[in-house]
Amino acid sequence: MGDTNANEREEGTALLPRFDKEGLVTAIVVDSTSLEPLMLAHMNAEALERTLQTGEAHFWSRSRSKLWHKGATSGNVLKVEEIRIDCDQDALWVSVAIEGHGAACHTGRKSCFYRRLVSDESGARLEPTGDAPLFDPKDVYDK
Amino acid sequence: MGDTNANEREEGTALLPRFDKEGLVTAIVVDSTSLEPLMLAHMNAEALERTLQTGEAHFWSRSRSKLWHKGATSGNVLKVEEIRIDCDQDALWVSVAIEGHGAACHTGRKSCFYRRLVSDESGARLEPTGDAPLFDPKDVYDK
Repeated sequence: MGDTNANEREEGTALLPRFDKEGLVTAIVVDSTSLEPLMLAHMNAEALERTLQTGEAHFWSRSRSKLWHKGATSGNVLKVEEIRIDCDQDALWVSVAIEGHGAACHTGRKSCFYRRLVSDESGARLEPTGDAPLFDPKDVYDK
Repeated sequence: MGDTNANEREEGTALLPRFDKEGLVTAIVVDSTSLEPLMLAHMNAEALERTLQTGEAHFWSRSRSKLWHKGATSGNVLKVEEIRIDCDQDALWVSVAIEGHGAACHTGRKSCFYRRLVSDESGARLEPTGDAPLFDPKDVYDK
């Protein structure tokens, strides 16, 4: 990591995203007020460009292999307030305000992270945090 | 996403991590008090197991292809306070307290996300947020 290129990428002011072999960087999406993590998604160059142009989060949907304007179906558009990039420029921190129902997760909850890990001698399992759905996915996605 | 297996993965209490083809899930590491994103890393099954067993964050280093006990060299061990998992179980939210210098980034800063994107008609560039290094990497890594 000591070469000039790495130093420019880590300390410089040039945006030099390090896209992976599928052309993607990872985006951590957080609530701009509470900083609560909402979801994890991926952006290709086009998704990042559209996000910067429109102020609304766009991702690359790996499951559907297409550009994804988050909230286009559900109304839960993510208005971008700030984007940060990490040291080696392969991850983004996207601070957003959620429109619509105020839910970023397709299950209807505000955040995708609605379960915590608990572990003891019998192993690890999940425990709900109690985050309740803010909309019924059936009303939004199955029409 | 409507099959029984997906429903169990999304709404159940069983830990069923969806490791990618390289055997990894993505981990968003955040400060347990402020929720500020600190870094993004990856865990394989062994790293997750070690993390749960020891209470200290372990990752899989993709650049070095080895298990990585974060902070073993720098002293900046990450004490885990809570782990959450997302809806489709391919991402973790790891809340930590940083030991040592209180810095999670190898550049010496608390967070890896020390630059924001700014964009205008001439394009996008990066701007420092002003986060200062808490240690000099040369003192820690080049010995």
